[in-house]
Amino acid sequence: MDPRTIGILGGGQLGRMMVEAAHRLNLRTTILDADNSPAKQINALSSHVTGSFSSSADILELSKTCDILTTEIEHVDTNILEQIEKEGKVDVQPASETIRLIQDKYLQKEFLIRNNVAVADTIKIDTPSVESLENVGKEFGYPYMLKSRTLAYDGRGNYVVKAKESVPGALEALSNRPLYAERWAEFTMELAVMVVKTRDGRTLSYPTVETIHENNICKLVYMPARTTVDIRKKAQELAEEAIRHFPGAGIFGVEMFLLKDGTILVNEIAPRPHNSGHHTIETHSTSQFEAHIRAILDLPLPPSTTVPRTSTTSSIMLNILGGPDPASHLRVSKLALETPGATLHLYGKTESRPGRKMGHITVVADSISDCETLIAPLVAATSYTPSVSLVPASLPTPSSPIAVIMGSISDLPVMSAALKTLDNFNIPTQPRIVSAHRMTQELYEFSTTAEARGIRVIIAGAGGAAHLPGMCASMTSLPVIGVPVKGSSLEGMDSLLSIVQMPNGIPVATVGVNRSDNAALLAVRILGAGEGRYRDAMASFMKGMRDAVVKTDEMLMEVGWKKYLEDKEKEKK
Amino acid sequence: MDPRTIGILGGGQLGRMMVEAAHRLNLRTTILDADNSPAKQINALSSHVTGSFSSSADILELSKTCDILTTEIEHVDTNILEQIEKEGKVDVQPASETIRLIQDKYLQKEFLIRNNVAVADTIKIDTPSVESLENVGKEFGYPYMLKSRTLAYDGRGNYVVKAKESVPGALEALSNRPLYAERWAEFTMELAVMVVKTRDGRTLSYPTVETIHENNICKLVYMPARTTVDIRKKAQELAEEAIRHFPGAGIFGVEMFLLKDGTILVNEIAPRPHNSGHHTIETHSTSQFEAHIRAILDLPLPPSTTVPRTSTTSSIMLNILGGPDPASHLRVSKLALETPGATLHLYGKTESRPGRKMGHITVVADSISDCETLIAPLVAATSYTPSVSLVPASLPTPSSPIAVIMGSISDLPVMSAALKTLDNFNIPTQPRIVSAHRMTQELYEFSTTAEARGIRVIIAGAGGAAHLPGMCASMTSLPVIGVPVKGSSLEGMDSLLSIVQMPNGIPVATVGVNRSDNAALLAVRILGAGEGRYRDAMASFMKGMRDAVVKTDEMLMEVGWKKYLEDKEKEKK
Repeated sequence: MDPRTIGILGGGQLGRMMVEAAHRLNLRTTILDADNSPAKQINALSSHVTGSFSSSADILELSKTCDILTTEIEHVDTNILEQIEKEGKVDVQPASETIRLIQDKYLQKEFLIRNNVAVADTIKIDTPSVESLENVGKEFGYPYMLKSRTLAYDGRGNYVVKAKESVPGALEALSNRPLYAERWAEFTMELAVMVVKTRDGRTLSYPTVETIHENNICKLVYMPARTTVDIRKKAQELAEEAIRHFPGAGIFGVEMFLLKDGTILVNEIAPRPHNSGHHTIETHSTSQFEAHIRAILDLPLPPSTTVPRTSTTSSIMLNILGGPDPASHLRVSKLALETPGATLHLYGKTESRPGRKMGHITVVADSISDCETLIAPLVAATSYTPSVSLVPASLPTPSSPIAVIMGSISDLPVMSAALKTLDNFNIPTQPRIVSAHRMTQELYEFSTTAEARGIRVIIAGAGGAAHLPGMCASMTSLPVIGVPVKGSSLEGMDSLLSIVQMPNGIPVATVGVNRSDNAALLAVRILGAGEGRYRDAMASFMKGMRDAVVKTDEMLMEVGWKKYLEDKEKEKK
Repeated sequence: MDPRTIGILGGGQLGRMMVEAAHRLNLRTTILDADNSPAKQINALSSHVTGSFSSSADILELSKTCDILTTEIEHVDTNILEQIEKEGKVDVQPASETIRLIQDKYLQKEFLIRNNVAVADTIKIDTPSVESLENVGKEFGYPYMLKSRTLAYDGRGNYVVKAKESVPGALEALSNRPLYAERWAEFTMELAVMVVKTRDGRTLSYPTVETIHENNICKLVYMPARTTVDIRKKAQELAEEAIRHFPGAGIFGVEMFLLKDGTILVNEIAPRPHNSGHHTIETHSTSQFEAHIRAILDLPLPPSTTVPRTSTTSSIMLNILGGPDPASHLRVSKLALETPGATLHLYGKTESRPGRKMGHITVVADSISDCETLIAPLVAATSYTPSVSLVPASLPTPSSPIAVIMGSISDLPVMSAALKTLDNFNIPTQPRIVSAHRMTQELYEFSTTAEARGIRVIIAGAGGAAHLPGMCASMTSLPVIGVPVKGSSLEGMDSLLSIVQMPNGIPVATVGVNRSDNAALLAVRILGAGEGRYRDAMASFMKGMRDAVVKTDEMLMEVGWKKYLEDKEKEKK
């Protein structure tokens, strides 16, 4: 595919998954790390270098084995990288300047601010002291974040200064480190986007994910993030904008904060594959690891690279951390093998320590709520602390893809046939009263957020001047089924015509008067247009109907039509 | 995960993909094959054995490095396997008896017949001669298949005896080989199913695929096979039934013929991962390779193992064979990197030969027709012979997921609004006339085959005693949208009530009289219930409508309502 050898600084799990991707493209990789490190285990070449990515001599040694150098970690010696870059024999991607800018979080922030990328307000602390930290408190208020500029990851090197009284403790915790302070970001959700930058400066971004941290370590990654399409798009744009300015090619992880007012701020950037992109191995035809390799070698990266495999592909990734005893992570792994939709990745680390990343599990299904159901026992098994809850941060995820609404409680006797039918198809749903004329705000909120909440079909029943189905359809792009409910006059014709005769542009799928049972069956057929299991369920339901009618016909032939009518007549008396 | 080491007889691409799966579970594998064979490249252990899977001494040597022996190929020395099995120190999976039964195709057939598994009629040929082969011709007629019992793969060892005159040629081509003959199977499609057998004798089967061969070598694999759900189910049942009888655990590839009358016959079985299961790496959370490893080690294999990742997951796999020059396959590989939805696997084989399997490409998308569109340029690039066509073997795949039918050509002026709307959404479709009362057979055929042909939503327009939408809905599990077309009397009320007032059990999604434009919009919303891209398209269409009306309002404020009406009045004159 390409004759060049890729030298990788670091042979941990990120290097290992890069090597796996390289193998599939028949590409040679050489690794600098300790013997038997995770990446080396799966690469039988003899030209690896034993040593450390923080040693300039070892980096120089690795550069002799390869044509292009890249890293799985940013805490490397950038001076030697720059020297190698200048000599020009070995290519360095991304550029040493990018690694240098990113490995010092304050330089990173400065660089982003200079390029007009939204970040939290920042103050450099030249001489850490009680006075200088209290001055930050006067400027930012409390709490604020005190951060080490270098060698900080998985939350190590961060300190929350909660009040003036916390200043001495902060100074002690981060002594002998170069520091800076950040204004506290009151976020409602943490987002992340993996951005690929090509050698000719194009950027592509994978879908926005939501990350959930526990003890400052990434625990769960939801794809897509449980927020609106608009916010997800905005996060991708911001992430691409942030990366556009860094020199060199490769993949970048961009972590962001979503604030209450919808503002998004860049938190931190990683110039390499990142934990928030592991799910791409399962969800995308090209994983973040392969995308990185393609980017640095200038192999094709079409815009489709970052589009999930199918239109319904959703996933949740769960990290497997070392637990209290050496086999804790193995129990979670065994459970993963029993979990539908789950793919297990173990990293080949021989020794388990509490909090060490030993592997991860990716669950893929048709929706985030399906993924949540599947992954719940695994989350429980990783002794997830009660401080972090699986309850979505923004909108509640409905348990059913079908919503049933009605204009009034008096519609319930008619609409209950829909509910019973959905129960029979094992898609139970909680009906809601949403009166078009008396609950306009609820109608607006219900309709405009339905899609983001995972609803796929809406059944709306109403009578008289039946505006509910049409008004709902006007505020969502989802299919809306209307059930005309017969009122006290006109035999339901008023309801029927109010629902079916919608103007050009906004259709309502109308069923017969009082036929909410058929509305439920239609909803199942609509889900079946996208998912075979619903088609199969409908086909078997229809076979059941047929069998029942065929039996009636057989009975009629056996009994005889005269006798049957006579019997009926007798029953009446 | 498991302390046992797995020894693999053979280190080609199947061994390599097994090793890849084992790595992800932190499992040790040792390999018997030549140095630097594909599997060895990705496994840095030093305890591999250099040698051949056909040498009993080498197999014995490998058995000393591992706790369990398995194979990537059936042409191994089963005597030594049996000996190792009997000694009991090292486990052999699947059992040596299974390998022995399968490596001799005639024993395999006999075994299947004994167990009442449907296969083609078979005659053993004890002494190959003109007379004995002509006797087969008398029994089976011509053409019939003459096959070598052993060492036959990728079509090598098979000969089609076309007529009495071909007998001497057949004898020459397969001289010095143990032979048997098979009755010619006039198949309409070749199917295959990967079956996993657990150590406690359970069987699970991956979805039925369709295989397309070129020069007797598997070229393309379609998942799911382009036939009906019933046939796919039947093939899975037959495959599981066939495998149930073989002793030992592991994965098995079952190749089958689908005959014109719907009969399915088992053709051949492979006691190992198989080319027709490569797509499972992308389409399933547990690939055939991981399933094999789980089966032989008795790790969990829940029923969900063989269910695709999402409900719409469809795929086509294309083999990359060595071509006329040493770089032919690399050109195809490069093109694969540019293909949306495609994942490339190269096997690390250093030397390319015409017809050698160098790698494969899996394309995943929401439907087989999407996959076909994506993979077409790659198929062309592999110099696909014109004898094998991409046109489906059974039913035509429609170009659009939406079908538009109407009762009469007189409905076309009304229904054309639906067609134009679908054009605007870039989902053009070919309308059809299907009269409920005058084309009953066509209506039956259209409705009952719609799902299998890839249709997802049906729009049906009709007037008067409008039976078409309801009758169509009665014969499919797909959602049907009814458009009441206004006739010469009753202002369309006859059509509306004929369509909307369906009985319990069979819904028709009815839109307003003559509102075929809304029917098309509803169809797009229905597709959107399953696929986000249609929801996005609908949302942007609705934004366009809104913008247009907002503009009208602005215009009205600017012009003034009196002047606007006066101008309109003037225009009329």
